[in-house]
Amino acid sequence: MSENVSFESAETCLIMEPRHSNPAGNVHGGELLKIMDNIAGIVAHKHARGNVVTARIDEIVFHCPINIGDIITCTGQLTYVGTSSMQVMVTVHTLKNYTDTLVALTAFFTMVHMKEGKPAKVPRLTVTTEEERDLYLLGERKYKEIKKKYM
Amino acid sequence: MSENVSFESAETCLIMEPRHSNPAGNVHGGELLKIMDNIAGIVAHKHARGNVVTARIDEIVFHCPINIGDIITCTGQLTYVGTSSMQVMVTVHTLKNYTDTLVALTAFFTMVHMKEGKPAKVPRLTVTTEEERDLYLLGERKYKEIKKKYM
Amino acid sequence: MSENVSFESAETCLIMEPRHSNPAGNVHGGELLKIMDNIAGIVAHKHARGNVVTARIDEIVFHCPINIGDIITCTGQLTYVGTSSMQVMVTVHTLKNYTDTLVALTAFFTMVHMKEGKPAKVPRLTVTTEEERDLYLLGERKYKEIKKKYM
Amino acid sequence: MSENVSFESAETCLIMEPRHSNPAGNVHGGELLKIMDNIAGIVAHKHARGNVVTARIDEIVFHCPINIGDIITCTGQLTYVGTSSMQVMVTVHTLKNYTDTLVALTAFFTMVHMKEGKPAKVPRLTVTTEEERDLYLLGERKYKEIKKKYM
Amino acid sequence: MSENVSFESAETCLIMEPRHSNPAGNVHGGELLKIMDNIAGIVAHKHARGNVVTARIDEIVFHCPINIGDIITCTGQLTYVGTSSMQVMVTVHTLKNYTDTLVALTAFFTMVHMKEGKPAKVPRLTVTTEEERDLYLLGERKYKEIKKKYM
Amino acid sequence: MSENVSFESAETCLIMEPRHSNPAGNVHGGELLKIMDNIAGIVAHKHARGNVVTARIDEIVFHCPINIGDIITCTGQLTYVGTSSMQVMVTVHTLKNYTDTLVALTAFFTMVHMKEGKPAKVPRLTVTTEEERDLYLLGERKYKEIKKKYM
Repeated sequence: MSENVSFESAETCLIMEPRHSNPAGNVHGGELLKIMDNIAGIVAHKHARGNVVTARIDEIVFHCPINIGDIITCTGQLTYVGTSSMQVMVTVHTLKNYTDTLVALTAFFTMVHMKEGKPAKVPRLTVTTEEERDLYLLGERKYKEIKKKYM
Repeated sequence: MSENVSFESAETCLIMEPRHSNPAGNVHGGELLKIMDNIAGIVAHKHARGNVVTARIDEIVFHCPINIGDIITCTGQLTYVGTSSMQVMVTVHTLKNYTDTLVALTAFFTMVHMKEGKPAKVPRLTVTTEEERDLYLLGERKYKEIKKKYM
Repeated sequence: MSENVSFESAETCLIMEPRHSNPAGNVHGGELLKIMDNIAGIVAHKHARGNVVTARIDEIVFHCPINIGDIITCTGQLTYVGTSSMQVMVTVHTLKNYTDTLVALTAFFTMVHMKEGKPAKVPRLTVTTEEERDLYLLGERKYKEIKKKYM
Repeated sequence: MSENVSFESAETCLIMEPRHSNPAGNVHGGELLKIMDNIAGIVAHKHARGNVVTARIDEIVFHCPINIGDIITCTGQLTYVGTSSMQVMVTVHTLKNYTDTLVALTAFFTMVHMKEGKPAKVPRLTVTTEEERDLYLLGERKYKEIKKKYM
Repeated sequence: MSENVSFESAETCLIMEPRHSNPAGNVHGGELLKIMDNIAGIVAHKHARGNVVTARIDEIVFHCPINIGDIITCTGQLTYVGTSSMQVMVTVHTLKNYTDTLVALTAFFTMVHMKEGKPAKVPRLTVTTEEERDLYLLGERKYKEIKKKYM
Repeated sequence: MSENVSFESAETCLIMEPRHSNPAGNVHGGELLKIMDNIAGIVAHKHARGNVVTARIDEIVFHCPINIGDIITCTGQLTYVGTSSMQVMVTVHTLKNYTDTLVALTAFFTMVHMKEGKPAKVPRLTVTTEEERDLYLLGERKYKEIKKKYM
């Protein structure tokens, strides 16, 4: 079926500038959240082919500090879709000393496709590779965990 | 004991400007996350009386959209403290048509007090009012939920 | 009368970030003016329940420098109303070393309620407490001083 | 005497962009104040040949609204000097329809030369042209008005 | 003929703030390009008396670094016009130690007048002074060089 | 030899927000130049493994307008290296209607590796694939064109 589509992803590579810093001299957590929210929006936007909004974000974990001058790579990966919602796993890697790449941040974004102010359907996902199956199972488990918590 | 201190809180009131908007014309989720991260930082900073970092954020829920021109109130409330970590509940209210105040966003921030690059102790909390006891119990439950999830 | 309303006020609490700094390393005066103008706008907006513009600002005094990392509290207090204008006293306090709160900036903003491009009426103020009476007298005196200067 | 110097001035020409707008769609008053504070700082910096701070601002008057897309010219003109303070008259003109130039904003900035955290001497002014004499007399009158108000 | 107009120019004077810096502590090249693009837009906008877009930029040369705290002057000078395009030479000077003015950046911007999404005619230029003749010859030579390169 | 390295590249994917717009409602050319300068800096930084500055930019061509809401991909590709300089070809693609990808902008950046304020050596490039050979020949031709123009 033409509606069955592959797992969207998006990536952005940025150098951390002084205007991103907090009073302690590291990169401001809020600036990183904004970058992550943007990439989740791009992934969902490409999948839904329409306007999307952030509905919720879970388990944002700061694994290590990011310094001014670091080159970061922020990746969004679609992992699961509901009727009108999409789950996007977002990861930020940071490059230290041109050689070591560390995971600095991870989070799960739940995005919703909106049409005329109401949630609208999104295309189904077809699992074709083993990596996609793993992503899907991870996404499904997180989706159920989150759903349970809010009942 | 002089170390026993009350529950810190902080509040910021802002008008949403066009530079905060996303392509759909509402307020950008990332901008709101930045405002929330700042208020959590202020609360933790005032409690720890030192430098603090965001360690994790849980259950960021977007309850309703915020429009350009809305006056928002972002509140941070300390709910629980561990050895070096502090849990801050952050809520964003938005005022529509000068009369209706809606809850737009809620989240739980875990902040850590840092001294010379290492986690450092924070003052204990003393529950003195009924409201504080409720906050503390809510905080403790969330703290345990989150801790369990990461083991 | 339902039109008689109390004295509106608003408060915003912010941490000063490196992006707010001037070349000398303190907080840029222009950034503080922007924060003050916003709070005056919020107070006037809440009182007039409509669109407002800044008509004039008098006696902006910088009492002490504000440093990056300081937590500031910017307060707007309605003090007097004319036919379509509102006078808002704005004060910025800054917290040094977690204990000392200093007055860093004060100013008087004259805001005007606008409807379809023209000045529009604003609700009258009713003085009910002694503090409000003092505010009103201060506001009235400033209003007359300013009016006299421009004739 | 080599210390006797002419009246410094500075000018900046800018196009008003959407990021400068307020919720009503005009240029944000706070953005204009920031531009004016910068030009006052440049004039004072050039005269004092050192670090300067804004000490006070008087009589900021908004004469007409500025729209997005307008080309504005912000001019700073030194009018008077005290021992360590300098008075700078700042004017913002806006160009409408490529032909009409309107005065949109005027204000008097009092800047102070700072050395190692303390007010420091600034060069005297020598009046050589009739225009400079008029500026000086205006500046002197404003200076005395302001001084009187604060005693 | 009333259509024959003189050579437009525009100038902006700005102090370089910490928010303009790159990770190495100098002014970010991208920030300077934005300031230059704005001034080219102002010059073209004033000449065409309508909406303009940047079509191309040639030979942007960074002659010396600009530091935070430097006062820069960015000048745009119209040098040549085609049917719907305008060539603007943009120069950035920086003031070091209050006395030495250095050329920091130069570039040639080609701007196009747009009406309803299509290129539209711009007024002819009339050379009246020797300086204008030199500008025109320089502009014409650059225009031909660039045109040749793209055929 | 360990010094012989492959052709670095970097990519950033961004959604164009209202704060990026110019008065005409498209994306501001200056904002795009800043994004391009950043990606050129990242590529050069990764190749030189040290601090880099932009020395010059040539042939920036705006092929089509970019709208607010467009998802752009900005790519930097190392094409040629001199003793201490690196040439980076930067391209911006924009996605229209989720299906059509258009080339919106292209440019050639010349970056220089800096150590203690002076140009420093950069690693040589080894051509291993046919695509790299084409890139190298294109880069070499541009390098010679540019060098000739400045003699």
